[in-house]
Formats: sequence, C-alpha cells, structure tokens
Amino acid sequence: MAKRTTIKDVAREAGVSVTTASYVLNKNPKARISAETAERVRKVAERMHYVPRSSARTMIKRESKLIGVIIPQTGSRSRLMFANPFYGEFLSAAEYAIREQGYHVLLSGTGPNQDYSQVAQMRELDGIIILGTYPCDFLDEIKETGIPAVLVDAYVDDHYFHTVGNNDRYGGYIATKHLIEKGHKKIAFVSEKLREKGVHEQRFQGYCDALKEAGLPLLEEHLYTCDVSYESCYRLAADYANKNSGETAAFVTADIMAMGFINGLTAQGWSIPDDLSVIGFDDVPLATMCLPSITTVRQDITAKGMIAAETVIEAVKGIPKKDTILPLHVVERDSVKPIL
Amino acid sequence: MAKRTTIKDVAREAGVSVTTASYVLNKNPKARISAETAERVRKVAERMHYVPRSSARTMIKRESKLIGVIIPQTGSRSRLMFANPFYGEFLSAAEYAIREQGYHVLLSGTGPNQDYSQVAQMRELDGIIILGTYPCDFLDEIKETGIPAVLVDAYVDDHYFHTVGNNDRYGGYIATKHLIEKGHKKIAFVSEKLREKGVHEQRFQGYCDALKEAGLPLLEEHLYTCDVSYESCYRLAADYANKNSGETAAFVTADIMAMGFINGLTAQGWSIPDDLSVIGFDDVPLATMCLPSITTVRQDITAKGMIAAETVIEAVKGIPKKDTILPLHVVERDSVKPIL
Repeated sequence: MAKRTTIKDVAREAGVSVTTASYVLNKNPKARISAETAERVRKVAERMHYVPRSSARTMIKRESKLIGVIIPQTGSRSRLMFANPFYGEFLSAAEYAIREQGYHVLLSGTGPNQDYSQVAQMRELDGIIILGTYPCDFLDEIKETGIPAVLVDAYVDDHYFHTVGNNDRYGGYIATKHLIEKGHKKIAFVSEKLREKGVHEQRFQGYCDALKEAGLPLLEEHLYTCDVSYESCYRLAADYANKNSGETAAFVTADIMAMGFINGLTAQGWSIPDDLSVIGFDDVPLATMCLPSITTVRQDITAKGMIAAETVIEAVKGIPKKDTILPLHVVERDSVKPIL
Repeated sequence: MAKRTTIKDVAREAGVSVTTASYVLNKNPKARISAETAERVRKVAERMHYVPRSSARTMIKRESKLIGVIIPQTGSRSRLMFANPFYGEFLSAAEYAIREQGYHVLLSGTGPNQDYSQVAQMRELDGIIILGTYPCDFLDEIKETGIPAVLVDAYVDDHYFHTVGNNDRYGGYIATKHLIEKGHKKIAFVSEKLREKGVHEQRFQGYCDALKEAGLPLLEEHLYTCDVSYESCYRLAADYANKNSGETAAFVTADIMAMGFINGLTAQGWSIPDDLSVIGFDDVPLATMCLPSITTVRQDITAKGMIAAETVIEAVKGIPKKDTILPLHVVERDSVKPIL
C-alpha cells in the first residue's frame, strides 16, 4: 500500500508540533496560532497531498457525513433489490442529491438476521432513509439510536420519523375512478398480499372508495394477489385467464406487475386492452416501453428521491420534522379502453 | 439525540479503568487481563447495549469494512445512473455479496468535479469496485492511494487492477455471426459513439471479425451511433427509417438501446423482425418483457456483481490479482428471423 501523508509528516515538514498542525488543519477555533504559521502548515499540507481521515474527523466532530439508505430485500442472492425498477430510479436521484450536499451514501439491503440499528450506530450514520417499511421492532430500534430518519412510502404513526410519500389511498381512488369513467363496472384488483399500513393496502382502500362512490359492490372474487414482480404477475395471468370472473378491467398496483400481467395474458391469447383494460401505478420508464403502453397513476419517483435526500439532510442539521406528500395523477396511454 | 453508551459508561459500571474496558472490547491481544474481569466487562457492555464506533475501530485497526462502488453518471439530476437496468442488477448482486461478507457499500455516482480518490482516502475505503471506465487520470489517482480496486467492464492495461468482464470482442463476433448464419448480409451496427478501450469498441471489433470471416464488406453507411439509453435509440430509429441503407438486420450493442430502436421503428410503421432483424447485448430482464422479445448476447449480470464483490474482498485480504472473464452466448428469441 502506498504511503499516505499523515499529520505527523506535515508537522515535521512545516517545523511545527503535531498539535499545532492539527489545530490548523482541523480548523479548531480555540487555537491561537499566528496567521503566518497557519498559512505555512496549510501550504505544506497541500503540497504533500494531505487528506484528513474521516474516522479521525468523525471522532472529533461527531459527524460522519454518511447517510444510510436502506432498501428492503426480501429474497437472497437475487435481483430482488431492484426487481422493481422503482428502487433504481429512487436511489439514483437520492444518491445524486446526497452527494451534492457533501454527504455519501451507505447503501444496504435488509436481511432477516441483520440488526440495522447496530449498523447505524457502528457507522455513526448522520441520518437514514428507509424505503417501504411497516411498523415493526426495527423502527423502534432506529428510534432508540436517536439518528434522524426519513421513512419513504410507509404508514407509520410515529412523530419521530420524517416522511416522504404519496396519498396512496387517493391514488387507488383515481385509478379505479378512471376505469369507472370509461364505463367499467366489474374491476379486478391485483396487488401484493395486503398488509396493514402498507401502500398496497392504502391503494385497496382507494379502490373501495371509488366503487362505493359509484354504487358498485365490492366483491371478493375480483381480488387477486401475487408478489411485486414481473414474473409472479405473469404467472398469475395464466390462472386469471382460466378463471375469468367476468371483469372488463383491472387495477394492478405497480407497473412492473401490470407489465407481467399484460404479457402473461397476451401469452394466453388475450388482447389488451380489447379483452381487458389494465391500469397500473408508478409510471416507471417501463410503462412507455411495452406494447400496449400502460395507462398508470404517475408518481414522480425522481422527485421522491431528491426530496427524501433533502429531508434527511435538513433533519441532520436539526430542522424540525418535515412530511411531504407528492402529487399523483392518471397518465392515459394504450392499456385502457372505454366500453360502450 | 438519545444518549449513546460509551466505553466510559461501561468501564464505570464494571468498576474497571477505561483502558481495561477498551482492551477487552477491542480484543487487544497484548492486554493481560483476568478472564473474570474480561467476562464482567463483556457482560456489562452487552447489558448496556454498547456498540463500538467504527471510526474508533478504524483508527485502531486500519480497516473501515467499507467497499466503494462507483457507477458512472454522465448527466445530472436524472435517472442516468440506472438509465441502463444493467447497473441496478449489478449493484443489487454486489451489495448483497459484500454485506454477506461483513462489509458495507459506499455507493457513489461520479461527477465531473469530484475527486473520488480523495473520497476513497477520506473514507479509508478497504476496496473499490469501478464500473465501465476508460484509461484516465482518475484511475492513476486511485492507484496512487494504494487501495485495492476491481475494474468491471474496462479495458485498462494496468496490472495494478483486478478485473471482471466479458470478452466483448467475442460477444460482438457471435452476435454478428448469428445474423450472418440466418442469411443476413447487410447488417447495421448500432452503438454508443466508439471510444478506444471501451466495451462498445470491442463489440465493434467483433462485428468486423464476423464480417471479414464471411467475406462481407465493412461499410461505413451501416454504422450508427446514439447514447446508451432507450430514448436516444428510439429517436435514432426515426432517422434510420427515413434513411434506409438497405440493411436486413441490426446488431445493437445494448438491450436497452435495442428496445428503444425496436419501439421507435414500430412507431414508424415498421414490423420487427419482418422488416428488420435485431439482436441486442446483455440480456437484461427487459429483453423478455417486450414484444417482440429480444434475441441477445447473454451475460450473467448477477454473477458479475457477485464475482466483483468476491474479488474486491479477496484483494482486501491480500490475495493476489485476479481476473475473471465471464462467458457469453446468444439467446434466441423473437426479434431475429432468417431470410431466404
């Protein structure tokens, strides 16, 4: 390993004590050092390519300039962290914004046997962004560490956490209402298995709201579940094609699932939207890349990443709790058609 | 901020000096401490939820357990880090493998004004993975830090770096040969603007090799360039449809580009593969999600991420230079058809 310039090297070269060099280079306001000496030390440090070590600085200043970004990873050894392209887009925007502010990202998936609150303390994270979580012990542990944390897309009733998200219930409502306005009365709801306080459960509530408003019955036979992945929803489509509960439209709660559903049905000989109208959720780039392009509820994922980054850095700086709810709207494309 | 248990708290509670507590908790082999005292300190530390700070440990042990992963980001504020889903899949696999080994990932895009070698020193990274780079000053600076580094998909002639990649020239050869074997003689080559020592340039060499082997001329009118993005190649397709140099097939050097090209041509009224056969490169999940599904040169991106992770951690542990070349093969799908 190449020899790295230490503060001792700088001190020796500048003809001052290590303490003096340290005072100058760590900008200690208490130190009383002549401008001339300080200038000499700084010039020597620059000439010798001296780079202060973060660990030393962290110990002195109690800040690591590290922001943890935690992304749920339900499976092992797989593509699962980014099975949904939503995560990639979010992370890309958040990382950029965090770096622009002079911080770095410690990225981590989550595993069943990992104690992330311990990681957060060990790494002395200045702040944490957590994606798509549910109320759980893990969040209590994060809270106990006292590290500022931003929850993205989580419905957790705890004033400790800053939040960034959508009004997912409203999103489910406008998706379903859009189908109803196109004349559909029997509407399938396809989502991840519903978990209390999850975004899919909120979107389901919105589906119920729209049905109720239109005087349509909520029927269990119209509800379908699979994993949030292309493959799982592609497989579901085969069962769906055989069962057929007479729906003319489906609200699928994520675009990656909607794409699997559409392609799975196409493989079964169905024609979309002629045989079934499909509306998705998210507006990932994929939604415009497939045939038919997917009518969907658009959320601005890049903005979500940027705002999560800004919020966590503001929190680190002690700015009080901030909650952001991003707007949603329907983008019409080719996967929904009216029935007459 | 919640009060965090310090080593002083543990020492006080256990009735020992801070030095003794530190010796026990940092497992200093030089320390001579009775088994009984050590046990008491450890129990107190556990009861008080004492977590050692990384910065302190880094200063003592000279290891940070941090691996930097650097992903090129050519634009700002955009989705560009993951404009190619290749990066998401790679990162997901690498992060998982690194975490399993007890390390964490410091993720960073690259910006024009950022000195990553300084970041690497400041953060005292144990190792670095760099994706898709070219010979440049930046690599020389990384080398000067002495930190072990793995280059992924880079053709850099420097024995300092460990490498993981494909034989991209071979990949370009088998892609083009596949089209020739299907009877095609006029074959477009669509890629990023060629840069010396880049993967696209290597794939171009392979394209030339296959043409030469088959006795076909290399014609400049068959060469097209655009950015490595869906949108850029979609736009290129409009020009392509108007120009028409009589090709019956195209080798497009990344699936994300091939998908934009196919959809762009479809929007111009072309039918793929009837009007043009298209072969891609990568085999990202997208390649099976679109219509027609894309015939492509498959590389195992998840394996690439895992191997890059293993290689960098071996390098950190002092295992000598390792170079891995992953296999490539053609996966036949629906975007290529034979001509008679």
